Amino acid sequence: MALSPYQQLEQEFRRLHAFRGAASLLRWDAAVMMPRGSANVRGEQLAALASECHALLTSPKVSRLIERALANQAQLEDWQLANLREMRRERDHAIATPLSLVTRLARATAVAEVRWLEAKQESNFALFAPHLEEVVALTRDKAQVLSQALGLAPYDALIDGFSPGFLSAEIDQLFRVVSRRLPGLIRDAIELQAARPPLPLGGKVSTSKQRSLVVEVMRTIGFPFDRGRLDGSDHPFTEGVHGDVRVTTRFVPQEPFTGLMGALHETGQAMYDLGLPKAWCDQPVGRDRGMALEESQSLLLEMLIGRSRPFLTYLRPLLEKHFGATGPEWEIENLYRHLVRVRRGASRVDADELTYPVHIMLRYDLEKRIFDGTLPVRDLPQAWSAGLDERLGLRPANDAEGCLQDVHWAFGSFGYFPSYALGSFIAAQLYETLRNDVPALDGQIASGSFGPLLEWLRENVHAVGASLSAQQLITNATGKPLSAAPWLRYAEAKYLEDGG
Amino acid sequence: MALSPYQQLEQEFRRLHAFRGAASLLRWDAAVMMPRGSANVRGEQLAALASECHALLTSPKVSRLIERALANQAQLEDWQLANLREMRRERDHAIATPLSLVTRLARATAVAEVRWLEAKQESNFALFAPHLEEVVALTRDKAQVLSQALGLAPYDALIDGFSPGFLSAEIDQLFRVVSRRLPGLIRDAIELQAARPPLPLGGKVSTSKQRSLVVEVMRTIGFPFDRGRLDGSDHPFTEGVHGDVRVTTRFVPQEPFTGLMGALHETGQAMYDLGLPKAWCDQPVGRDRGMALEESQSLLLEMLIGRSRPFLTYLRPLLEKHFGATGPEWEIENLYRHLVRVRRGASRVDADELTYPVHIMLRYDLEKRIFDGTLPVRDLPQAWSAGLDERLGLRPANDAEGCLQDVHWAFGSFGYFPSYALGSFIAAQLYETLRNDVPALDGQIASGSFGPLLEWLRENVHAVGASLSAQQLITNATGKPLSAAPWLRYAEAKYLEDGG
Repeated sequence: MALSPYQQLEQEFRRLHAFRGAASLLRWDAAVMMPRGSANVRGEQLAALASECHALLTSPKVSRLIERALANQAQLEDWQLANLREMRRERDHAIATPLSLVTRLARATAVAEVRWLEAKQESNFALFAPHLEEVVALTRDKAQVLSQALGLAPYDALIDGFSPGFLSAEIDQLFRVVSRRLPGLIRDAIELQAARPPLPLGGKVSTSKQRSLVVEVMRTIGFPFDRGRLDGSDHPFTEGVHGDVRVTTRFVPQEPFTGLMGALHETGQAMYDLGLPKAWCDQPVGRDRGMALEESQSLLLEMLIGRSRPFLTYLRPLLEKHFGATGPEWEIENLYRHLVRVRRGASRVDADELTYPVHIMLRYDLEKRIFDGTLPVRDLPQAWSAGLDERLGLRPANDAEGCLQDVHWAFGSFGYFPSYALGSFIAAQLYETLRNDVPALDGQIASGSFGPLLEWLRENVHAVGASLSAQQLITNATGKPLSAAPWLRYAEAKYLEDGG
Repeated sequence: MALSPYQQLEQEFRRLHAFRGAASLLRWDAAVMMPRGSANVRGEQLAALASECHALLTSPKVSRLIERALANQAQLEDWQLANLREMRRERDHAIATPLSLVTRLARATAVAEVRWLEAKQESNFALFAPHLEEVVALTRDKAQVLSQALGLAPYDALIDGFSPGFLSAEIDQLFRVVSRRLPGLIRDAIELQAARPPLPLGGKVSTSKQRSLVVEVMRTIGFPFDRGRLDGSDHPFTEGVHGDVRVTTRFVPQEPFTGLMGALHETGQAMYDLGLPKAWCDQPVGRDRGMALEESQSLLLEMLIGRSRPFLTYLRPLLEKHFGATGPEWEIENLYRHLVRVRRGASRVDADELTYPVHIMLRYDLEKRIFDGTLPVRDLPQAWSAGLDERLGLRPANDAEGCLQDVHWAFGSFGYFPSYALGSFIAAQLYETLRNDVPALDGQIASGSFGPLLEWLRENVHAVGASLSAQQLITNATGKPLSAAPWLRYAEAKYLEDGG
């Protein structure tokens, strides 16, 4: 029997999935295993795979099949309909960014990345500015074509590429609510914590000891080491596909918790990937629901679970087992004070849970102004410095610690940063409902029983895949549309009522 | 200016090269890094890449471009002409094996491989026989279509897929010459060696010590660790591309030389890959000249250089440095006796330099008889046992040690085994000329100076790429067509005159 148009589409997207899985493994290898001198070779391989994926999505054949499948929607089941909608979404994104623009952006961002690194090393934004200008110009072109294809405002069209369905109007509103309360919250938390400084954690813990602890924790959480790996890398990340998930973290001997917290963050994303609907794992509807949701799963495990007293109760004996750690500085309460320490600083990646959204709101504000043309790229250092001062009461010492600290804009990733803050808010809203639904959660975590936590997340988030919009997923899981209130309640309870 | 048909072909084959490089990395990862449970996912990725490569080679566009480029040959330079010839050869091979046949073979061999492992574990050929029969039938179909496309006899068409340009008539002739002299040579060598048994090498050497020795040796030979890696795996192999070569070896603590010899073998192939003409590295003419040539480079480094007194003179201080090895059993002469020990046995992979060709000739004889229908698959165990008895005077204890020892036939790799023996003969013939051209070779090797050796190989073998046939390459490099005489001279000098 001949395959229906929809079935033929499933075949095409299965092929796309295989190519993307191959590309993901090549990226993992490049960061973890590849010798330094092989970057050009790898670049060619990734470019070939990317252009093959683009060719597949923009082929007349796929568009024809989509039109024919849409004309016969009545014969499709719900998941198939959702899959077809996601197929169309991916096609629309690909068609709106013609290969010539993709190629020009790839070249410009490749150069910009190198210049960014040089400029950062010399702490001289002027070296980077012309390249960033070119990337911004090309990204604006991309936003324009995407805007028309998707029926969204240009900047919203960029957001849609990372966290589908979120609009800047909604993000503005969330950020407005949080901004009103956050400065006071940060000030009060720092004041409270200053009264009870933690004992320092002296000494070093070898990477191999840290690794063995992290492996035991990940295994207990449910990470399947027969279908995944943990490795070290300069920056933690997760790559791979449903059946082969590759997590990395950064081990620092002087910082016994950096490797673990990075691994928890990535394990949150990995468990999301592993919990996606297996029957749809090679189809668009079987993918995660975008960066904001992904980040929510990472933050939920790292911040809301990992930096909590119940988790430290579970962790305490493991620290003794793997690190040989004893003494008052390794007591639960002291560790907790370390892990929830609030500090105002210029660096985003070193920021704590409370000041992190401030760094995101600064970037979000600046990139919107760059995009609407009210902030010329050359004025970025002053605007950055002034914005940080206004929000946190401090200025970066130089460009390297200021507007050159992140590589993302060199990559052309505009509309990407808000996903981080959205992830916090989603995590807190999910967590509030989760705690209601699983009242015994704290005790379970304290005894190393992560099953009920993961079951709830799997049922309410992971197994949904991309069958619903992010907003609908959140509403179904929590009974309410996304708001910043749960995050503010969570933050206040953790940093003020608990006394941090 | 519009690209010429030939230039367009170069673009297409550049894409092919990128896909193949990606596939090679995925295979390396599967053997070295991948978690066990991820085999299915990886299988899908490799299948998608393989069918993409097949689609590219068999596309009407590529065939049209080849015909148009052939019609304008006058405008092409020599290397371009050779490249066009290799493009056509790859196209012919691909077109002759339609995707339906490729798919059926892929499925049959995937099952056969699993059944082979079970049959081997239970030492019961009957479990494997029906699956091998199916693989043979499909491979016969493939040989038939290839035969017509290439104008070769069916079995020769299979050989052409591994070592282009070699015919079974030529292999028959080489094997006839060697067979006449080899039994006496083996007998005499064993007798001579029995009079001077080496002192045993007791104790274990940790993998990390062995690894550090191997890294230093490889670095000294010229392996570029900034564009390549060394890892451990169950079986030594080389994967990767020109700019990113991945070598593996098998470390065995009880056997201090297994890891080193495996690494030398693979480094020989790696240096070949690295010495291929850089300007053509992403084109068919820039590839190696087939398995026999590849094996010659491996054997030259492992057997002819690595198992020699000059090499052991270089190695001796490194063994003390990395293994802390001292005492009479670690003296050069004693190590040499270990490394050139001749023993009759049933296993191919454990065989020494002299008995190895016997194992190959046995397989070659049997697979030709299976192919021409004179040996039914079910009779293989008896034929194997009788053939080994006739050639080496011993019989395997059971099927596992006999006709089930190799996986190759389960993969459908018929016409593959002779490449191993051809590699020995080519290595010896190259080595004879090399020693004439570089009279100071022994002293150079003894002092750890591998430059002149590599220079000669690069100029005469590596840099030729696939621009000449294997036969022409050998004739150019040595002044004579390939014969078995140099190998016999080498073997007699090493195992009889030197006293082994």
